[in-house]
Amino acid sequence: MNYQPRLDDIHFILHDVLKAPAQLQALPSLADTDAELMRQVVDEAGKFTAQKIAPLQGVGDTIGCKFAGGKVTTPPGFKDAYQDFWQSGWPALACAPEDGGQGLPAVLEAVLFEMLSAANHGWTMAPGLLHGAYECIRHHGSEALKAQYLEKVASGEWLATMCLTEPHAGSDLGLVRTKALPQTDGSYRLSGTKIFISGGEHDLTDNIVHLVLARLPDAPAGPKGLSLFLAPKVLPDGTGNAIHCERIEEKMGLHGSPTCVMRFDWATGWLIGEPQRGLNAMFVMMNAARLHVGLQGIGLLEAAWQKADAYAKERRQMRAPKPTMSSTPDPIAEHPAMRRILATQRAWIDGGRVLAYRTAIELDIAKQHPDATRRHSAQLWCSLVTPVLKAAWTAQAFSGSSECLQVFGGHGYVREWGIEQIVRDARVSMIYEGTNEIQAIDLLVRKVLPDGGAGLSSLLLALCEGLDNRVPAHAQLGTQVAGLNQLTSALVEAAKADQELPYWVADDYLRALALTLLAWAWLQISAASQPESSSVNPARWTEPSEALRHWVLPEFGMRQHIIESRLGLRMCM
Amino acid sequence: MNYQPRLDDIHFILHDVLKAPAQLQALPSLADTDAELMRQVVDEAGKFTAQKIAPLQGVGDTIGCKFAGGKVTTPPGFKDAYQDFWQSGWPALACAPEDGGQGLPAVLEAVLFEMLSAANHGWTMAPGLLHGAYECIRHHGSEALKAQYLEKVASGEWLATMCLTEPHAGSDLGLVRTKALPQTDGSYRLSGTKIFISGGEHDLTDNIVHLVLARLPDAPAGPKGLSLFLAPKVLPDGTGNAIHCERIEEKMGLHGSPTCVMRFDWATGWLIGEPQRGLNAMFVMMNAARLHVGLQGIGLLEAAWQKADAYAKERRQMRAPKPTMSSTPDPIAEHPAMRRILATQRAWIDGGRVLAYRTAIELDIAKQHPDATRRHSAQLWCSLVTPVLKAAWTAQAFSGSSECLQVFGGHGYVREWGIEQIVRDARVSMIYEGTNEIQAIDLLVRKVLPDGGAGLSSLLLALCEGLDNRVPAHAQLGTQVAGLNQLTSALVEAAKADQELPYWVADDYLRALALTLLAWAWLQISAASQPESSSVNPARWTEPSEALRHWVLPEFGMRQHIIESRLGLRMCM
Repeated sequence: MNYQPRLDDIHFILHDVLKAPAQLQALPSLADTDAELMRQVVDEAGKFTAQKIAPLQGVGDTIGCKFAGGKVTTPPGFKDAYQDFWQSGWPALACAPEDGGQGLPAVLEAVLFEMLSAANHGWTMAPGLLHGAYECIRHHGSEALKAQYLEKVASGEWLATMCLTEPHAGSDLGLVRTKALPQTDGSYRLSGTKIFISGGEHDLTDNIVHLVLARLPDAPAGPKGLSLFLAPKVLPDGTGNAIHCERIEEKMGLHGSPTCVMRFDWATGWLIGEPQRGLNAMFVMMNAARLHVGLQGIGLLEAAWQKADAYAKERRQMRAPKPTMSSTPDPIAEHPAMRRILATQRAWIDGGRVLAYRTAIELDIAKQHPDATRRHSAQLWCSLVTPVLKAAWTAQAFSGSSECLQVFGGHGYVREWGIEQIVRDARVSMIYEGTNEIQAIDLLVRKVLPDGGAGLSSLLLALCEGLDNRVPAHAQLGTQVAGLNQLTSALVEAAKADQELPYWVADDYLRALALTLLAWAWLQISAASQPESSSVNPARWTEPSEALRHWVLPEFGMRQHIIESRLGLRMCM
Repeated sequence: MNYQPRLDDIHFILHDVLKAPAQLQALPSLADTDAELMRQVVDEAGKFTAQKIAPLQGVGDTIGCKFAGGKVTTPPGFKDAYQDFWQSGWPALACAPEDGGQGLPAVLEAVLFEMLSAANHGWTMAPGLLHGAYECIRHHGSEALKAQYLEKVASGEWLATMCLTEPHAGSDLGLVRTKALPQTDGSYRLSGTKIFISGGEHDLTDNIVHLVLARLPDAPAGPKGLSLFLAPKVLPDGTGNAIHCERIEEKMGLHGSPTCVMRFDWATGWLIGEPQRGLNAMFVMMNAARLHVGLQGIGLLEAAWQKADAYAKERRQMRAPKPTMSSTPDPIAEHPAMRRILATQRAWIDGGRVLAYRTAIELDIAKQHPDATRRHSAQLWCSLVTPVLKAAWTAQAFSGSSECLQVFGGHGYVREWGIEQIVRDARVSMIYEGTNEIQAIDLLVRKVLPDGGAGLSSLLLALCEGLDNRVPAHAQLGTQVAGLNQLTSALVEAAKADQELPYWVADDYLRALALTLLAWAWLQISAASQPESSSVNPARWTEPSEALRHWVLPEFGMRQHIIESRLGLRMCM
């Protein structure tokens, strides 16, 4: 069974829950955002995904990418699907009209990539970094570079890579050793080896645009000495650049995406942005990538849930405990342990969608809302919520798809049902674009603590708008917000005396915020799915909402407990 | 890096923590159990495992088992290693001397299989069911069957299988359809298809002894109509039996073990035990198998931990937060997030060992202690602790080995380090021998509730012996025990009115008991590792013990909370 986009769910969250069109109409370049157009784009994206991309999911895993003689062959069908994809204009959805794009809101691109990732994570890696590369070149590239590359990258006619990691430099990019020597014509020669380069080499497009972190001869050691360069596979004069794919990795999963070792053998490149400001230029790209990875998590979990849900309705084993027991075995979808697994994943999927789509909306608001205060709050939302989405939803994609595998029993462990592929594919999302541990440190140590918790506290205050403490679910969010504010204050204080401490509990802190955002997201869903306010069937939302309350949110108290006991605020039990 | 048994740790737990020799000397057949002999056996088992089995771990995955023309070829080296294994007498370790065995305590076999599973889960599947099959034939086989098969199975010269599952009958064995027709010579003809048969066909031994659940012509529907049969691959007259391997499964992992679809084409077999008492005869085998799966979990987690620990000490990225920061990147083993992951796994490994080894000791006590009360308490321990070991330690093997993978960053996702293989291999242990959900139901619904919680309560009482509430770790165990007793009483009451309810929270209940047993196990370790009472370096045990307190035990409160809120005993937050 291939993944099938649930367009009704997506429309409901975009329109009924988030009121996306109204939000976006406040922005100058999106003033004529039209609800009907948004629905059409989502429907078309769903159709394309279901028809062209989802059917290639299995072959991407079983055949995978092949490497021979420096060349990579992608699985059968991948190239045609990609050509179809860019020629249909999908990569250019949210690019500026002056660059050949369609100028649509970022949230539509978010929806597109959630569906693509659900349908085929491996294939989707290819265009996954395109939009980030587009933004990077657009904002930091010279006019000459933009003239040469911007439209090709905007349209997706050429794919792009992000060449950061080296064998000895993973999370610590300050250790990057690739060298860049300036040439008299203004270009540079790049020398070094990059690893884990997704799409470093492939047969999907005629050219590949590599964005490469390297060090100028006079640059200081550490991250501040890094500069960013653009080095194409094929040079403007049509000759090949001295960039060689040495091998592709054998991986746990994601076989549809070639993970390349790339050797730059004094390859020709051009500086992007200022010398020694390479990380700054690349961060645009990395932040966009983090939201995309969060969306992958949501998509993968949805794909796993769909498989498990369908199987659980078909498979009959044992009679389920009920007041009136059946005389024959019941579908396992009626057994409490299975219902719990299935409804819990939906709680994460639906809530994650609210948060991820809102983040994509806030990205546009942060760029161009006329009101500076609103731009600021949008910026704050993106800054604080993005690492949470990346870490918590990729963790759930892995553990939750593993729970969906469990629904199949032994059949889940064999390949034919395709569920184990999702578990293997999903695992990498906890690592790339900054490991989940790095996300947690980014959130707590780099974002929450430096301003004494003020930013986080104002985000939480906004979540509490309109809470009515007589409603249990409202009261619960209030309790979590109060708890999180207390933890934050205590951590701000404690970190002054013990700078190591926040690093121990950063993961718990991120989880506590994730569970608070999730509680908030579900309040929005519940409000929008009230029978009187919507035509949507409220039963669709009741079971995951109950699962959230029973099985998911109690983790908040545990995280609180762990942080408090580490802070010495209470005894362990 | 191959797995290397940590013999000091194992000796410490067997001798210093559990005082195994003294315990076993109280049993008639083990009266001359000698501490020195136990050490020697463990050391030799460690040597065999490290030298002969661990080096085949990689090839088992990358080459795997091959199927062609009804025959299975195991990976290179597997057959030689197996021949060496049985000829060295390892399978017969705990078999009775009258059957050609060495009559050693079950706990030594437990240690052996923990090490083998850690070294090479795939290979270890082959002899994994042998001892269970031996016990099954020994206790339920006719004299004629015993004369023909018992010694061959005891020695391991012939391997054995457990043929239960059918395409439509997994957790629900009552749906088994395989037919058995009685013949005039006292034999039976078996017809049907069995799936997920580990080692159903292979090249390791000349004969394979299949134990097969099937239904006699006059048998009622459901589990009570099943009988057990022995059907060998090669019949006593040397001709092949009508048993065909139709294919082997493509799986997520465990490629070193052939998972076979077996067709019984009116194959010849003989009844084991009474007609329609097949499940009863097989349960001996299934219970032994469950403890073994728990030991697999411990072994796999140890193997993953060893890899991650070694990598974390070598890999340098970023400076760790410390009062005096280094001027160069530190080993990641010094970063809090990695220390937390590593120490947490040790807390589960060491504590799991205490519980699993004790369970193996209790198995022998249950069989032959002169005092009936002691036999009864041993029986109770095995009955209640075995499902907990199986479920909680296999779940930890998967999630914990995934955390160990995370220590490697991107390198963990590629094959060369071997850590991703452990994650894939470990996943199946949560499914086979009764899914973890079935274990939880077994514990709560079938074992705890039927006697009103009396058995569980007496087990907990024994855990509390000698507690001194002035010691925080003692007080914590006391709190958990009290909490668990309260939950049990409340569940006993609630189940009277709502029989579905226990099924919803069975998993939380099992986790709560697992965390209580773990807290108890660590009290034993701490007591034995006091500087004054042992020559062991106490620093070895301090970090995991702290990790247990900080990061692991707080889950108890969450589980308690979940059950209580489901019972309506408190509001959700």
